[in-house]
Amino acid sequence: MQTPWDHRFAQRTHKMGSSAIRELLKLTEQPDIISFGGGMPAPDVFPIEEFREACDRVLKDYGAQALQYGPTEGYKPLRELIVRHTARYGIEVTPDNILVTSGSQQALDLLGKILINPGDCILVESPTYLGALQAWAAYGAEYVTVPMDEYGMITDALEEALRSGPKFIYVLPNFQNPSGVTLTLERRKKVIELADRYGVPIVEDDPYGQLRYEGEHLPSIVVMDSQGRSPSACYGGNVIYLSTFSKILAPGIRLAWVVAPPEVIRKLTQAKQGADLHTASFNQIVAYEVSRGGFIDQHVKLIRQVYGERRDVMLAAMDGYFPPGVEWTHPEGGLFLWATLPESMNSAEVLKGAIQQHVAFVPGAPFYPLGGGHNTMRLNFSHASPEKITEGIARLGRVLYEYLGEPITR
Amino acid sequence: MQTPWDHRFAQRTHKMGSSAIRELLKLTEQPDIISFGGGMPAPDVFPIEEFREACDRVLKDYGAQALQYGPTEGYKPLRELIVRHTARYGIEVTPDNILVTSGSQQALDLLGKILINPGDCILVESPTYLGALQAWAAYGAEYVTVPMDEYGMITDALEEALRSGPKFIYVLPNFQNPSGVTLTLERRKKVIELADRYGVPIVEDDPYGQLRYEGEHLPSIVVMDSQGRSPSACYGGNVIYLSTFSKILAPGIRLAWVVAPPEVIRKLTQAKQGADLHTASFNQIVAYEVSRGGFIDQHVKLIRQVYGERRDVMLAAMDGYFPPGVEWTHPEGGLFLWATLPESMNSAEVLKGAIQQHVAFVPGAPFYPLGGGHNTMRLNFSHASPEKITEGIARLGRVLYEYLGEPITR
Repeated sequence: MQTPWDHRFAQRTHKMGSSAIRELLKLTEQPDIISFGGGMPAPDVFPIEEFREACDRVLKDYGAQALQYGPTEGYKPLRELIVRHTARYGIEVTPDNILVTSGSQQALDLLGKILINPGDCILVESPTYLGALQAWAAYGAEYVTVPMDEYGMITDALEEALRSGPKFIYVLPNFQNPSGVTLTLERRKKVIELADRYGVPIVEDDPYGQLRYEGEHLPSIVVMDSQGRSPSACYGGNVIYLSTFSKILAPGIRLAWVVAPPEVIRKLTQAKQGADLHTASFNQIVAYEVSRGGFIDQHVKLIRQVYGERRDVMLAAMDGYFPPGVEWTHPEGGLFLWATLPESMNSAEVLKGAIQQHVAFVPGAPFYPLGGGHNTMRLNFSHASPEKITEGIARLGRVLYEYLGEPITR
Repeated sequence: MQTPWDHRFAQRTHKMGSSAIRELLKLTEQPDIISFGGGMPAPDVFPIEEFREACDRVLKDYGAQALQYGPTEGYKPLRELIVRHTARYGIEVTPDNILVTSGSQQALDLLGKILINPGDCILVESPTYLGALQAWAAYGAEYVTVPMDEYGMITDALEEALRSGPKFIYVLPNFQNPSGVTLTLERRKKVIELADRYGVPIVEDDPYGQLRYEGEHLPSIVVMDSQGRSPSACYGGNVIYLSTFSKILAPGIRLAWVVAPPEVIRKLTQAKQGADLHTASFNQIVAYEVSRGGFIDQHVKLIRQVYGERRDVMLAAMDGYFPPGVEWTHPEGGLFLWATLPESMNSAEVLKGAIQQHVAFVPGAPFYPLGGGHNTMRLNFSHASPEKITEGIARLGRVLYEYLGEPITR
């Protein structure tokens, strides 16, 4: 039904449409569905008791401050805590380099607001994080893509893409959402070198960096970029780095941060003032209270153990239940793995069958800004219990055999 | 110093500049300054103990849900609570008419995102709320203004302004920020009638509606608009209504809501998904827990009493200490009053002298999107204690006499 509002909506909204997939995924919220769809942390690892104690202390000792308006940049002690956290990974910044945001999604939105003119081209991995595409659709972003393999963005294709003059490079180097793949050290160097040569800045999105279950920690691009520039390892300034408390504490408090040059932080702060004034004081003070004694390091060990086990369970189940011809990534950390079906199959079609069998995943196509990926799918392994993971993958395996029209051979 | 970032910022950021006034107001954060600058609630009336108990219960009983990702539209029981709250003011809506936002500032930002094409004209009161101008600068809004008097927007000037074809009318009918003035019932009717005749929707921003200290409650524009349309008082749909928990519970939890037609809520929800995924689950569940037993009604009585007294104290102090030739509004509610100095004076200049005397306010000019108001000032009476209000107004009176170059005559 047409309403007077239909012709009132701004042009930019035509690119922001709710996808059919979002509607499909709403079906997965039914409790009897085993969902590998969302990117949700396991509720089992939420530090509920620590939050309860922190809320109690904060409201007793700083109640008036926690419930009052606060500065747009963020709660100063939390920004200082983030500075210390960042310093341990080898990069020296000050609170002037930090903006607290209402989740990383807001950081993506604010970056779009301050950097993207309509028609500007953004260089992204293909596939890339869907939330970034959603945020930047409102600012008229166009895309140039660089394909990925098991070592991350294929840097041999990067220079060609850079020649189109992108506004910035958007990269998720660690256990990428959606592919689960990690950019190698060699390729990180190459990205920094080429970005420098073409004078293009880098936005490094790193929500999962601490959640590594095997292999060696690799330095962040922002760290490598800084070290290349000055022996004192001060912040170099060609990289904007994003990270979040969502995966190391809890997503329901909506707390993340940006590390950037002070002039970028100032612009982001202006944009944030117009967008939501500031992130909830209460949440910032509580998160500070939970974290200040070193809790995060200890808690991350638990998360690694739980998610690492679930990843292993999912990989083993896929080995056991998926038909030949289906391939998947082996993520060293994070929350997701990525499966590629035979060319002839369409994962959005498979999802319909999967939902009938009470199991869900996210079809891969929406993660490709220029199209493609019809035969790919993203699977989350952090949320469901190991038993549910095995059962869900078994169901999905049966659905895949059915769509392949082949008898179940393994 | 120029940096490579200076030419990377999007064109829209040129209109988003941090104002000199914001920098001046940072000075007012010093503890020895009596500030009438911000729009802050009194910490004395924060329901700290109720929050402490609610946090405790929520984390014990719904911890995993409160710390997890949640739906973009908002926590369903909170949306239902807002529906009941709204119904009491005479308008029947359903949860499909409600979006929970991260403060009303986010509602303004999202409305800009879904409604404003660059160059679109918005019809606003003059002066109007600065936060709306900040939010909409990012979307390329232009303005047509309607002047105000002590009865609100001068509706005799409205039709002329409507002829320019504005995208929507933005109006704060109750105890307007910044002027403190309330739109009369007669003029509300006129606004609705003219909006209808010209086919222009209305955005009604009502953060303070419940905070009335004298006189009769007036029905909201959204209510009057609905009643005019159908005898069943169902939601008519030409008005988007904004309100907030910031002034009736606490601003530090960043919780507000939009009432709008379902098709507008759907668009806003898409925009919100790209902007911050959702408002913190924890805050929504805690606010629901604090409010569900009818606490807000009881609490609002306390707030009215405290703020009403402070308003009276400020008005009395102004009578006693301000020089002849200065005029001010008599707000029936809300947080602000508005003073007009003699034409020859510039309130931004006066602020410099005031800060030296450790008292602060907000100069009025930035509230005029098309310029003007150099001799006006906004004074907040909710935050400082009655003693501080009297002392601050006495100081400000001395500063005004000094700028007038006249001996203190009263």
